[in-house]
Amino acid sequence: MDKPQIGVIGMAVMGKNLALNIESRGYSVAIFNRTSSKTEKTAADHPDKNLVPSYSIKDFVASLQTPRRIILMVKAGQPTDETIKNLLPYLDKGDVLIDGGNTFFENTIRRNKELENSGINFIGMGVSGGEKGALEGPSLMPGGQKEAYDLVSPILEQIAAKAKDGEPCVTYIGPDGAGHYVKMVHNGIEYGDMELIAESYNLMRNVLQMSTEEIADTFNEWKQGELSSYLIDITADILTRKDDHGSGEPMVDKILDRAGNKGTGKWSSQSALELGVPQSLITESVYARYISALKDERVAASKVLHGPSFDASKLDKKEYIEKIREALYFSKIMSYAQGFEQLRVASENYNWDLKYGDLAKIWREGCIIRAQFLQKITDAFENRPDLKNLMLDPYFKDIAEKYQSSVRDVAALAMQAGVASPGFTSAITYYDQYRAETLPANIIQAQRDYFGAHTYERNDQDGIFHYEWYHEE
Amino acid sequence: MDKPQIGVIGMAVMGKNLALNIESRGYSVAIFNRTSSKTEKTAADHPDKNLVPSYSIKDFVASLQTPRRIILMVKAGQPTDETIKNLLPYLDKGDVLIDGGNTFFENTIRRNKELENSGINFIGMGVSGGEKGALEGPSLMPGGQKEAYDLVSPILEQIAAKAKDGEPCVTYIGPDGAGHYVKMVHNGIEYGDMELIAESYNLMRNVLQMSTEEIADTFNEWKQGELSSYLIDITADILTRKDDHGSGEPMVDKILDRAGNKGTGKWSSQSALELGVPQSLITESVYARYISALKDERVAASKVLHGPSFDASKLDKKEYIEKIREALYFSKIMSYAQGFEQLRVASENYNWDLKYGDLAKIWREGCIIRAQFLQKITDAFENRPDLKNLMLDPYFKDIAEKYQSSVRDVAALAMQAGVASPGFTSAITYYDQYRAETLPANIIQAQRDYFGAHTYERNDQDGIFHYEWYHEE
Repeated sequence: MDKPQIGVIGMAVMGKNLALNIESRGYSVAIFNRTSSKTEKTAADHPDKNLVPSYSIKDFVASLQTPRRIILMVKAGQPTDETIKNLLPYLDKGDVLIDGGNTFFENTIRRNKELENSGINFIGMGVSGGEKGALEGPSLMPGGQKEAYDLVSPILEQIAAKAKDGEPCVTYIGPDGAGHYVKMVHNGIEYGDMELIAESYNLMRNVLQMSTEEIADTFNEWKQGELSSYLIDITADILTRKDDHGSGEPMVDKILDRAGNKGTGKWSSQSALELGVPQSLITESVYARYISALKDERVAASKVLHGPSFDASKLDKKEYIEKIREALYFSKIMSYAQGFEQLRVASENYNWDLKYGDLAKIWREGCIIRAQFLQKITDAFENRPDLKNLMLDPYFKDIAEKYQSSVRDVAALAMQAGVASPGFTSAITYYDQYRAETLPANIIQAQRDYFGAHTYERNDQDGIFHYEWYHEE
Repeated sequence: MDKPQIGVIGMAVMGKNLALNIESRGYSVAIFNRTSSKTEKTAADHPDKNLVPSYSIKDFVASLQTPRRIILMVKAGQPTDETIKNLLPYLDKGDVLIDGGNTFFENTIRRNKELENSGINFIGMGVSGGEKGALEGPSLMPGGQKEAYDLVSPILEQIAAKAKDGEPCVTYIGPDGAGHYVKMVHNGIEYGDMELIAESYNLMRNVLQMSTEEIADTFNEWKQGELSSYLIDITADILTRKDDHGSGEPMVDKILDRAGNKGTGKWSSQSALELGVPQSLITESVYARYISALKDERVAASKVLHGPSFDASKLDKKEYIEKIREALYFSKIMSYAQGFEQLRVASENYNWDLKYGDLAKIWREGCIIRAQFLQKITDAFENRPDLKNLMLDPYFKDIAEKYQSSVRDVAALAMQAGVASPGFTSAITYYDQYRAETLPANIIQAQRDYFGAHTYERNDQDGIFHYEWYHEE
């Protein structure tokens, strides 16, 4: 038997599933895990698969064809650095390390530079799709040396999800940290999508007073239309499930309203702040999770701080359900507009030369935000590669203008009913800011010049000016 | 003549003014600037002042009494590190370096630790009040070794602004980076205050169609009441000023609506994201500045993206002016509630033992956010030092409940009129989130468990659960 062309380090569920996915395409796969028993178990659980277990890093590396292709599926951070350190003595120039973890892109930039000095290629690869995606076909976002990508692209294209037109959901993203950056923004967008769905549910449940069954039916209808997406699908499914502890009630009514996070949404917002990109919807979604986590504080505050009195009984339920649907789609467009603006500025800042249309393309299947809608984004950038903002594409512009009154009504309703909808409100706010010929920043700039002599520009001539605010004192 | 007790390095306007402020309290002050001509000029411009110029670091250090007290007023970042490096050979154990620049708090933590190894005390001191404040009395936020603070507190208390009750606007903030952190959040709050004022102006100007004169009159009224503050004061003043280029028009109509920033608001939001604190209002204020900076994109978009049709002619102007005033005060409370929540979490995270009431106290005068309102915050924390959120204090709770309908109306109006008001909308959203016994995070957590097996908690029993979402497939 030939030596395996590729190996996977880390036999937790994501690594194991990725190894099995590769094997299923006709490859033999070297596997290794720091704790040997896990390697042993993976091999023993799949006796009929071409998995080649090793129990030392040295043996693992020796088991591979050269140039070696090694996918790291270990915990991000310190464990990744340690694994690389342990590997290094056994690697040769031209070998390819691929970090498939949820790594902060600045670490990927650093590792790519450090390893390049030893002639080792380093790819930071975003992997989306969860456990199931890893096994059956994820969306892959690899960034690093182009020549290293070419060494692994035949395998990656086989294991990736396939879009309806047959195209694999993987492409070369760009140099050094580009892949992990794009994955980070993907996850931020995922936070936004999830928040908007949760707000839609909340308005139907707590303003329109709909039952969980009715809401499930509504999502089931929505998923046939322009909102069609994996997250709408699973939400419809989730809402039909009954408590697995036998209460007979809907499962969602038993789940505590405290959302966790693994930090990628936070990173995405921090980076947007760093780059000067207005990315309010994702940030509000991150904050919404944070405030959900303050459950005890909220319960205490709910007994003390009163809301408005609001009578929802006169609302036309059917009309408002449709308004919420339109508000959701409108807000989703704003969120992606912000996300792609962030990608554009990051690409310019880090010299990544990102291909925006291709990014939307590889998100069409495999990943958590997969949706019919992404084809529209690909089309938009194919029509106009230099498109400054998604909103300016004719398709999105039409939807935005048509649905704006719904999101205004829904956000205003939420506000009057005392039901927070940070996603919807930040979406319409962003729209109104972006299309504002003038904003009241003249006041802010005047204040800054007043107290700090920070100067200002004029709208009728070029130059930098300072006003003698104190001359009358 | 005795040697000076204190010296200032950096003769740009802030350093020069701080030196003159100290001198005016009866001290002689050693001064030094990297470019000697600036030192020379400062001394020459003030021949009657007790300024002791030096033209080398060595001479500067030698000119001071021991233990030496040296205030650095140089550019944050690399220049600060370089100045410290140049000073070190001449310093002795027990000397006190004070960095009065706009330094990122993590750098202050690092420098404090590094210098402590050489026995040098290092204080990171936030200085607020702009040029005028530095000269006449700023608000000072010093953090570092307590024993080092005690060596400089007599001088700091003399140069600081004085509150109406005579108390100096300076206090020991806490260890290492506490001072610069508190200054950073102060600046974040300042961003929020400025944004809320700008939005109030915007609604009066562009929805209520008021003239600049009418708006100036309104701010002049407001400054007599509970909104009384420096920023309202100067806004009222700004709005009365005429174009200094002779057009006869109000100055604000000539100032370009593109707001700059020096990064402290951004840092504040990035830190809130890092610490898991929902701090939406400041963040929206930072994003509002970013989007204001996209002037060309906005002008282009304004010609393409249409807004709503909205008829404001039937609004009762007087009624809405009062609603805007109430919305502004309500939103200001939410912003400070978020800022103080951030300070609380940071204090726990970095072991700073911050005294929240004292922070509000030293902001009563000297700094940009000075306001009558801060006394209420001091009172709130004196009544209940363990107060979890400002909103829960009886005074603020009453205002919030009383004014909530105004902010709901104003935010809804803004949304329907197509005028973005991110500050007002995030304020009411935060209020509604914080007082929500349940939020729709159950949906988010169900989705996370569905696609990533991230588990969830239940609301009827303790434990960590996973649902077999795929069991029916």
